Parts: sequence; C-alpha cells; structure tokens
Amino acid sequence: MRKQKATNITWHAHKVSREEREKLLDQKGVVLWFTGLSGSGKSTLANEVAYKLHERGKLTYVLDGDNIRHGLNKDLGFTPEDRAENIRRISEVANLFADAGVITLTAFISPYRRDRNFCRSLLKDRFMEIYTKAPLEVCEERDPKGLYKKARAGEIKEFTGIDAPYEPPENPELIIETDKETIEESVNRVIKKMEELGYLHG
Amino acid sequence: MRKQKATNITWHAHKVSREEREKLLDQKGVVLWFTGLSGSGKSTLANEVAYKLHERGKLTYVLDGDNIRHGLNKDLGFTPEDRAENIRRISEVANLFADAGVITLTAFISPYRRDRNFCRSLLKDRFMEIYTKAPLEVCEERDPKGLYKKARAGEIKEFTGIDAPYEPPENPELIIETDKETIEESVNRVIKKMEELGYLHG
Repeated sequence: MRKQKATNITWHAHKVSREEREKLLDQKGVVLWFTGLSGSGKSTLANEVAYKLHERGKLTYVLDGDNIRHGLNKDLGFTPEDRAENIRRISEVANLFADAGVITLTAFISPYRRDRNFCRSLLKDRFMEIYTKAPLEVCEERDPKGLYKKARAGEIKEFTGIDAPYEPPENPELIIETDKETIEESVNRVIKKMEELGYLHG
Repeated sequence: MRKQKATNITWHAHKVSREEREKLLDQKGVVLWFTGLSGSGKSTLANEVAYKLHERGKLTYVLDGDNIRHGLNKDLGFTPEDRAENIRRISEVANLFADAGVITLTAFISPYRRDRNFCRSLLKDRFMEIYTKAPLEVCEERDPKGLYKKARAGEIKEFTGIDAPYEPPENPELIIETDKETIEESVNRVIKKMEELGYLHG
C-alpha cells in the first residue's frame, strides 16, 4: 500500500489489542450469561445491571431475543439442532463483543448445559454464568409474554419447563432466586461479584 | 422480580439506549465497510484507521476473516449461497456492534453488490462503503497470502478476480486507490470523511 511497488516487504499493520481497548474503557471485556426459565427474570436483571454499570461509566451491551432472533438468527427455529446453533452463534458473537472490550450480557433461556459450556470454553475466566432461579409456578404466574398460557393450550410446542427440559447450571458463578430477593439486591450482588473478579477495571 | 408476588404490574427494566452509549463514548456507532480484491489493502487500511482512531480515544473493532471465519462462520464455505450467508451474518453482527456504539470496521472481499447493500439497508446513514481499488495485476503481485498463486495453479476454485466475479461499488462513500497513495494519505482521507459525517462525536 506504499508508493514503492514491487518490493518483497510485507507491511504489517498496527493492530489495536483487546488489552488496549480495555485500558481505554477501564473495564474488562466479559460475558455475563443469564440463564433460566422464561419469566425467571433474565432480561430484566441483565438490563438493570447494564443500566447501573452504564451510570458508572461502563460500556455494556445486552444480547437478547429482541436483537438476535429477528436478525442474525432469524433463519433458526426451535428444534434441538436449531437451539444449539442459536446458542453457538450467540456465544461466538458474545466472544467478539468481549474481545472488543464490551461488558456483554446475554439473556436467553439456554436450557442445555452443553451449549452454555461451549460459551464458557470460548471465554474461559471472562465468563460469568448467572442462574436466575424461580419455581416454574412463579414463572408461569408471571408469564410476562403470555407464553406459558399458549404452551399449556398446546399452541407452542417444546416449551422449556412444560414439554422441553431445562438443565440447571451445576457450578454457576451466581444463583439469583428472583422470587426471594428484590431486584436492587440482585443487581448489587452481580456487580459485587464483577468487582471481585476484577472486571470493572481495565 | 420484586418481593410482592401475584400482582399484575409489569415491571419495566431500565434500558441503556444506543444514544446513551454513544454519548459515553463520544462517537457514533457506525460501520466502515471495506471491500475490494484480495490484496487490495482492505485489512491493512481497516487496521490502520482503527489504530489512529484508538489513539484519539475512540473505541473501534475490526471484523475480518481471522475472527469470523474460524468462529461464527466456520460452518460456511465459498459457494455463492455460503458467501451470501457469510456476508449476511457479518452484516447483522456489524449492526449489533454499531448499536453498541462501536466504530466497526469490516474487511471482507464481499464481491457482490447485493450482499453489501443488505448491510447498508440495515445501517442506513451509519454505513460507509470504502472501495480499496487496485488493478488485479497489482493485487496479484502483492499476493500477501499466496492465494493468487494457488488460484492460478487451480488449487483454489472460484477465487474472486480469477474465476469468480467482483462487482465494484456503484456509489461508495470513498474510493481508495491503494497503488496510488500512501497509507498515511488513505487513513487521513477515511478519518476526514468520518468527521464530515459527524461520526467522531457522541
């Protein structure tokens, strides 16, 4: 790309490293993976944590059904294969976001242990699995999107918790029992854990 | 997620908007889409622009073959269908990055006008198409990865410029003739254009 042509010199571009981006942002690029039943509070908690971090000057981004299912993964359905591919792509994208230095929060049911562990294998110690735990009855009573009602009526098949399995995390970094603590308490616990893990400085 | 159960109150989470992230970062979330033949200088230029912007305190991220083909798109080959799906997914990911407020630079041959225009349709006025233009002979002489040699030997099929077409952009925001200007000149032109478009303030 220089004016002299026909040399054998390979020109190496400057590259910005993840560490340099993290220094700029004064934070680590990490993935907070929220998993749990529909209605267990994943999305609400992820967004509240992001909001609180943003107030502290941190760059956050939430990946959820709203911005993934209608875009990147709109070609995928809900068969076991498609669910696995869904989580695989989300994991790869979350890994890119973390590499960019962004505190990345994902809010997907992600019912299979193997799929979640794939993301952990990409991120290693930059991965926090947060299990939003609530009894099925509570989630079904909340039913924020009316999905349990449809599942019970047979209008939705293979709905997690009804006629499809949910595999709880075995060693999550945090368990949040969303029917037993306030959202403020939950948010504070997540952020405290992030501080302990050194995620909130570059 | 609050302590009171069994109410009909839908609790709306705070959400951080793109505008709020852009204010935090003092930049716009945009996509700089570099397109051109293999060896035309896409990746080199993208990385140099990112480096210069990083020195000015801007958050950038480069999407290229290195971080996409081995991860998100490792299931895709080089048939026309797979090439289209490759660029579709990259476009969706670039759109998410721009939504996060990141100055996103993509460096892919992206030979088809239709595929590039899909990304433009997602990003609208947050999309800068940059055509790194160099004669095939120059690119082939540079041959930084030895790919032209392999394509000429028939070891790689459907190689853009040899036995697969490249459709030049019709109205790119910038054309950079990488055999006619220094990389410093090219970088400055890209950044000047970004300033004109208001991308470098939140």
